[in-house]
Amino acid sequence: MTDTKSTSEKRIVGLGVSEGIRIGKAFVYHPVKLEQIAESKAELPEHELVRLERAKSLCIEELNVLVEHAKQTLGEEKAAILKGQVSFLNDPAFYPPMQKLIQNEQWSAETAVLRTVKQVAGLFESMASEYMRERAADVRDVGSRLMTLLVGHQGARLTDINEEVILIADDLTPSDTVQLNKQYVLGFVTRIGGKTSHTAILAGSLGIAAVLGVGPAIETIQHGDELIIDGSTGECVLQADEATKCLFAERMAREQAEQESLKAYSSLSAVTKDGFSVEIAANIGTPQETAGLLDKGAEGVGLYRTEFLFMSAADMPSEDMQFQAYRGAAEAMQGRPVIIRTLDIGGDKELPYLALPEEMNPFLGYRAIRLCLDRRELFLAQLRAIIRASAYGQVKIMFPMISGMEEWRAAKALYEEARQQLIAEGVKIGESIEVGIMIEIPSAALLADRLAKEVDFFSIGTNDLVQYTVAVDRMNEKVAYLYDYFHPSVLRLIKLVIDASNKHGKWTGMCGSMAGDPLAAPLLVGLGLHEWSMSTSAIQRIKQTITGLERSSCEQLAERLLELDTPAEIRAGLTAFLQQN
Amino acid sequence: MTDTKSTSEKRIVGLGVSEGIRIGKAFVYHPVKLEQIAESKAELPEHELVRLERAKSLCIEELNVLVEHAKQTLGEEKAAILKGQVSFLNDPAFYPPMQKLIQNEQWSAETAVLRTVKQVAGLFESMASEYMRERAADVRDVGSRLMTLLVGHQGARLTDINEEVILIADDLTPSDTVQLNKQYVLGFVTRIGGKTSHTAILAGSLGIAAVLGVGPAIETIQHGDELIIDGSTGECVLQADEATKCLFAERMAREQAEQESLKAYSSLSAVTKDGFSVEIAANIGTPQETAGLLDKGAEGVGLYRTEFLFMSAADMPSEDMQFQAYRGAAEAMQGRPVIIRTLDIGGDKELPYLALPEEMNPFLGYRAIRLCLDRRELFLAQLRAIIRASAYGQVKIMFPMISGMEEWRAAKALYEEARQQLIAEGVKIGESIEVGIMIEIPSAALLADRLAKEVDFFSIGTNDLVQYTVAVDRMNEKVAYLYDYFHPSVLRLIKLVIDASNKHGKWTGMCGSMAGDPLAAPLLVGLGLHEWSMSTSAIQRIKQTITGLERSSCEQLAERLLELDTPAEIRAGLTAFLQQN
Repeated sequence: MTDTKSTSEKRIVGLGVSEGIRIGKAFVYHPVKLEQIAESKAELPEHELVRLERAKSLCIEELNVLVEHAKQTLGEEKAAILKGQVSFLNDPAFYPPMQKLIQNEQWSAETAVLRTVKQVAGLFESMASEYMRERAADVRDVGSRLMTLLVGHQGARLTDINEEVILIADDLTPSDTVQLNKQYVLGFVTRIGGKTSHTAILAGSLGIAAVLGVGPAIETIQHGDELIIDGSTGECVLQADEATKCLFAERMAREQAEQESLKAYSSLSAVTKDGFSVEIAANIGTPQETAGLLDKGAEGVGLYRTEFLFMSAADMPSEDMQFQAYRGAAEAMQGRPVIIRTLDIGGDKELPYLALPEEMNPFLGYRAIRLCLDRRELFLAQLRAIIRASAYGQVKIMFPMISGMEEWRAAKALYEEARQQLIAEGVKIGESIEVGIMIEIPSAALLADRLAKEVDFFSIGTNDLVQYTVAVDRMNEKVAYLYDYFHPSVLRLIKLVIDASNKHGKWTGMCGSMAGDPLAAPLLVGLGLHEWSMSTSAIQRIKQTITGLERSSCEQLAERLLELDTPAEIRAGLTAFLQQN
Repeated sequence: MTDTKSTSEKRIVGLGVSEGIRIGKAFVYHPVKLEQIAESKAELPEHELVRLERAKSLCIEELNVLVEHAKQTLGEEKAAILKGQVSFLNDPAFYPPMQKLIQNEQWSAETAVLRTVKQVAGLFESMASEYMRERAADVRDVGSRLMTLLVGHQGARLTDINEEVILIADDLTPSDTVQLNKQYVLGFVTRIGGKTSHTAILAGSLGIAAVLGVGPAIETIQHGDELIIDGSTGECVLQADEATKCLFAERMAREQAEQESLKAYSSLSAVTKDGFSVEIAANIGTPQETAGLLDKGAEGVGLYRTEFLFMSAADMPSEDMQFQAYRGAAEAMQGRPVIIRTLDIGGDKELPYLALPEEMNPFLGYRAIRLCLDRRELFLAQLRAIIRASAYGQVKIMFPMISGMEEWRAAKALYEEARQQLIAEGVKIGESIEVGIMIEIPSAALLADRLAKEVDFFSIGTNDLVQYTVAVDRMNEKVAYLYDYFHPSVLRLIKLVIDASNKHGKWTGMCGSMAGDPLAAPLLVGLGLHEWSMSTSAIQRIKQTITGLERSSCEQLAERLLELDTPAEIRAGLTAFLQQN
């Protein structure tokens, strides 16, 4: 029996960050490494300055092409990262020091790039926060690009990929991933990287299976090797024997069958067995993302994040530009609701043209509605654009980061002002626009009974709500273990909010990641959540879960779970419930 | 009539940050300014290196003396700032670059200091967060010291002050303020500085009247001028005419009479007219602060912040060192309760020897109990030290930043482990130690009914509780307007906590700044707060306020105020109530 098992099979385990089983050929990618370049002096400093200047121009050109490419294929957020790299090249702390190293110390252009990148990246790295470390990666990335242009090195370019492969790399930088022909990339395996890395986020959004952080074991993978990876478990198998291949083929078939069977749910409504019907909506960042939404089962847009429109522009988008975008989304949804959230900038999202202050605790700082109420003109222009779009579909408005009654009233007053302006100007607007607020700050949840008298609806943003309620930055790996939307206090706040809206004849939605988690579904049905908004990929599975539930038993369950002490007990209770039902 | 009014009177208005009316002579202080030093090349670089090295040694010596001085007169926190300056001198990014500027580019020692300080301070300043800007001030401060030692300039030294004066300066650096003969300093007037500056904090803790940020108008004040300042209103009057002098003399007399009349309350208990008795305690940072506490009316220590013990040491304080400190506080309080809070480090408080990670949102990060549960040995040593001290007084233990049941249980288990160890070792310990938690995270307040079953007491830390509940960093000037402990949601949480403790036969204290605010007193009496802990200077006034109240009418008031929508309405309600009672 043992001889059927090949002894050459090798297994590597990393962090599974994006699910999917894939079988394919390894494509090993090694870009020009800064460390491989030896230091050298310049013979003709003037010549080196010209070389550096040319490399810089080419680099900016190349990046601008990638930015455009990214906008079309990867979304505005990825494009913004690449634009950040262009701004490094124009930063007085980056390019001029290179010139000085050539002029004053007669180093070669390569050495000038090398030394400056090391110094600037080292500075970012010494800051040690995850965010700053990511900026260090951006600096090194720009440095590699400059170096590649200087040394004329071609290497194994990602654009060479023209067949299906599993991409093997030390790490994938933002500009690497933009160049990918994603239709050929089955999966990623990298030496470094964690759950919050660019690569993980990218893989998730593209549906590419990914195993990250496998460490030095990555060197055992050779270009061209046949490889199996499992993006859920983090397993990678090299030279798999027949038994292993069979095993993974079976797993893969099951996975595909499940995907296939879920498709049936896209046309079904989310109604429990005993007739409780909820609305399933999608979270989007750009009007383009409305394409195919209805086919995938979305019954509306529960959260349109307008900040990407602002982040992708070089300057403040005009009222008309905004109007076109909002109108596009409203029309694409053919009369279904589209909830447009007003600008939520600040915190971890920056606008280069807005010169936001650097803050010690940005998540507790000048962001979202705080910024909008402070910059009235900016806010009025957005409100006017949204209200104008309301003539072309069922548009609703939602204010982010409301902490109490004054902010809500101030925001609502500005909405009224914008509306009256448009009416006075004779502009066509929708007949009735619902105006609601995000519940993502504990103080707003605690005041839900008062707010419910005045707002048209609530939408619970669990991501921030958990963060503030438990006082945990979920991007901070040292404390991320405390971040859990099943914390009993968070559940109490959710119940408070839903009950308050019911009492005043209003409705409550949820647009945080909890809404897309099947494990949370029985609890949220039990609490009576009206509208569920999630990433498109989660819709079918949630519909499947909800249609299998009975509201009455979910209510009993919720009551029972709310008496438990810890998130772990609550998760266990939900898991047991779903297994029995 | 008009001729009695001198036309030469001049008024300047700044930010009143520390109350008190003072009349005195202006002492204008201008330290050596870095910008005044012209750049120069070295004739003998070796000689410059020796000069620089000598200045550095002298500077470290001088700072070490100041650190000791600060510990005795200004407290550990101020001392820690000066120690930070010593560490700049030893930092590889600070001193070696100066040496290189001399060696490689033949600059003089003065120029080397100048250029390096500009570069490093500029870097900090470009980061633009308030915290980083303060670090830039520290760098410039060290630079000025080095420069003063290099040029041998004596200038107008603060140590020259030997009569009562009002100190006039562009800004006061931490090392300036340490050198002050504070018995001679009646007040501060500065060109720059805001409510969260070092100078403001220092003035508050020393009871020195202070007007900050008066701007260029400061130049109208000449050394030796007679000056009146009002630290409440921010007024400064130069060459005051007789009428003005009379007016301020009257105000000053009223102020002093009020201070005098308050003294009577130090020996009274805080009992309302209808017999509701509460405990008034003090917040302290070092055992030395227990001196005179009982005389000033404190009935115990409601918060002993142990982090200063850790921050002032060059290395982790041993269990024995800690034991001596805790025992000192316990003994000084003569059997009255002393609540020792376990280490609350992280956030905005650093320990150089602990190498804490830099975080994007430190207030939502790795701090307090999160760090202690992660660094078991550190925590066990502290718990052992506290339990040992319990043999010498009425010691209670309090855990900071508890967010839920697991953390409380994990911390309590370690307490039990420490206790059992000591019992097994035959060490003398107190018979019963109450173990409680801080309520400063919304999730803990929301779970108060569960936690109350297991803990011995709660202590509400309003400073952090407001910060998290409303999602506002109060140190951030852009959003500080949202920070208000009269936010209706915060009041709801306070009520929840007190009610939960009552229900389970436990008690609730408060050690945030709300407890020391007379305006909050009727509300907190109405909600039934059991123990009030505050800065020593607030005790007499709070006792005065409480003894004038009736619990029954406060209860009705609280009920009414909890129905209001905004902090402004609640403040107005309290102001009206206090005026009528």
